[in-house]
Parts: sequence; structure tokens; C-alpha cells
Amino acid sequence: MAGEIPDIVIGRLPIYLRELKRLTREEKTTTSSQELGRRLGISSAQIRKDLSHFGEFGKQGTGYHIEYLTEQLLKILHLTKKWDVAIIGAGFLGHALANYGGFGRRGFRIACIFDNNPAQIGRAMGELTVQHVDELEETIADLQIKLAIIAVPAEKAQEITDRLIEAGIKAILTYAPVPLKAPDGIRISYSDPVVQMQKMVYYLPPN
Amino acid sequence: MAGEIPDIVIGRLPIYLRELKRLTREEKTTTSSQELGRRLGISSAQIRKDLSHFGEFGKQGTGYHIEYLTEQLLKILHLTKKWDVAIIGAGFLGHALANYGGFGRRGFRIACIFDNNPAQIGRAMGELTVQHVDELEETIADLQIKLAIIAVPAEKAQEITDRLIEAGIKAILTYAPVPLKAPDGIRISYSDPVVQMQKMVYYLPPN
Repeated sequence: MAGEIPDIVIGRLPIYLRELKRLTREEKTTTSSQELGRRLGISSAQIRKDLSHFGEFGKQGTGYHIEYLTEQLLKILHLTKKWDVAIIGAGFLGHALANYGGFGRRGFRIACIFDNNPAQIGRAMGELTVQHVDELEETIADLQIKLAIIAVPAEKAQEITDRLIEAGIKAILTYAPVPLKAPDGIRISYSDPVVQMQKMVYYLPPN
Repeated sequence: MAGEIPDIVIGRLPIYLRELKRLTREEKTTTSSQELGRRLGISSAQIRKDLSHFGEFGKQGTGYHIEYLTEQLLKILHLTKKWDVAIIGAGFLGHALANYGGFGRRGFRIACIFDNNPAQIGRAMGELTVQHVDELEETIADLQIKLAIIAVPAEKAQEITDRLIEAGIKAILTYAPVPLKAPDGIRISYSDPVVQMQKMVYYLPPN
């Protein structure tokens, strides 16, 4: 069944989860597709349809029990345990990522960070120490890490990708502004702020 | 005509532009939808269809002239001039963004950066000096800035959004993990690495 669920639906589940956690912090115990939709700018029908792929989570009239729906989404997304993550690149961006508390709060643990710059190696970054990139394969294998974030310059990104996959990495979030080649079964997710900005500029008056 | 072009098509134009610039750096002068597609992992038919919304850019047999197609895409995306950008938040992430050379090379100029933390204000960041967030409205109005990047904690993001829009900002890229409310006509683009990672984890075996 999982294979038939559209990728775009899966992509919205983390957004629902994030908002449910926000509702919990606001000390709410129940919500509805209407309330979630209003808060997220998504139609309530869309939310109901998305969730219906995975079962019946709400009751007519009373809506969703937040704690229960949160638990179910964590199960669906395989987030009932923490996932270790390797960061490659300890420049400004790697530094920002290693220090971002959102990973720890939402299912991930930054387990190691690598660089090839002697000035960075050995430096403390959050609770981590920057390791030499030559230790990448051994550390990832030892810790059985499946997830990595690439924060290296574009020209190094494919080489690092190849090494990560060889070492056992199954999913990569990359900030390098370059398309990466990877075998089937390896997930790649891109983040390029310039692409996002350029897209928005299209919609602005040109002066 | 512009209004009829699907948003997802517009979103691919910056990716094409980025790859054309890479081809230029490789000293190529012509390319084809097949070559672009192979490099980007997008079908050549998709690329031809996307570009056909805007005119005829290639010739049967000879393909695309890279310099010409680059110029056309820059025009279509309103990138023939540099756009000033304001960054709000001078923490690790704001720091990484202010120092990222990709903006300058690809149509943007980081014009100012703001924070509310006295320890950050006055600090040099790349070629900028961190300003107090209270100067946000005046600086944005003076420089007629239309684009902003939000790199502040989630709980501050909506207030900053409201102030930015009031000051004249038309498009916002936000790294705060929270949905933002904005009037019609204001573009908001989200970047949340945890959402991207959670989506990928869904596709991994759960242990």
C-alpha cells in the first residue's frame, strides 16, 4: 500500500506533525481538519484525504485527538526512534546545521561532522568535534548511519555523495547547488535558497 | 499568459538556469534537452514542454545556444538586474546566509542583516554590519528592498513577517519552522531541513 501513496502526500505529513506539536505546546488536546487547515493554509478536505491513506484518525464531530494522531504520524514516518545524521562540511552552513536544535527535537541526532580543512578539524561544534573527512567511511559504518547532509562546495558534492553511498548512507539532504547522481533506492533531497528566491522573483514586478 | 503557466514549471526554470551556467563554465556553447535532462535527472520531453511556454529557444538538430537561452531565462525570471535582499536573524544560519557567495553570483545582493541580540549588533558579517532590528522598517524602505530571508526563531517569525510586509517586502524565504500568514500577493517560500529529512525517512526501512 505504501508504494501507492503519492510522494506529495508523504511530504505533507511532516508539516502536519510539526503543527500538531505546536498545538500540543499550546496545551490543546484535540483539533480538527478545519483548524489544522486554517493554521497551515491547506484545505481541510486535503488534510482529510491525505490522512485517509493511512487509516481513520478522527471522529465525526470531535475531530482528532492530538496525542494519538501525533503518535500515528511518528509511526508512519518511522520517527519512533531517533535517526543518526552525518554532516559533511563544517563551514558556516555546517556550523549552523550542527547547532540547530530542531533536529534533536524532531527525530534526529547529529552524530558526526566532517571537513577537509585542517583549520576546522578538531574544532568543537555543539557537542561534536569536527572530524577529518577521511574518517567518513569508518565512522558511518561503525555508527550504522543511514542519513547525511551535504554542506560542501558544489564541485565536491558528487565525490562526497559517492563515498557516502559506498559507506551505507541511504538518504541525503544536499545544500550544494548541483544535481547529484545516485543509484536507485537512494533518496536525495535538495535545498538551494537561490532557486527558491529566483522562483519568487518571477512573480514580482520587474522593477 | 504568465498567469497560466503552472507554478511547478516556474520552479524548474532556476534549475535549468543553474545548469546552463555550469555548462558555460565547462566552456560549452550549445546543449540539448537530452543533455540537460541527463544532467538534471529530468526527461528531455519535460524540459522542451517547460520551455515551450515561453517561446521557441532551440533548433531541431542543433539544440539550444547556451548563452542565448541563459539570457532568455534571466529575462523571464526578472533576473537581468540584481535584487537586494534583507536577512533577519544574525545567528548561525543568518551568518551562513550572509556569507554564501551563491546569492551574489546568481542575481541577488544581501543588502542588510538585522538582529535583536545586543551581542550581534554592530558585528561585521561578510561585507555587512549587523543592524538592530528596530532599523528594519527604515532600511527596507530607504533601499526599496522587496525580498527578505527570515532566519529567526519560530516564535518571532510571524511578527517579523508582519513588519516586513508593512515595510514593503513582497517575497519572503523563511527558515522558521512555522507557517506564516500573509496577505494575497505576498510570496512565501519555506525551507525546513527537518521536514525534508522526515519525508526521506518514510522511505527507509524503519531500523
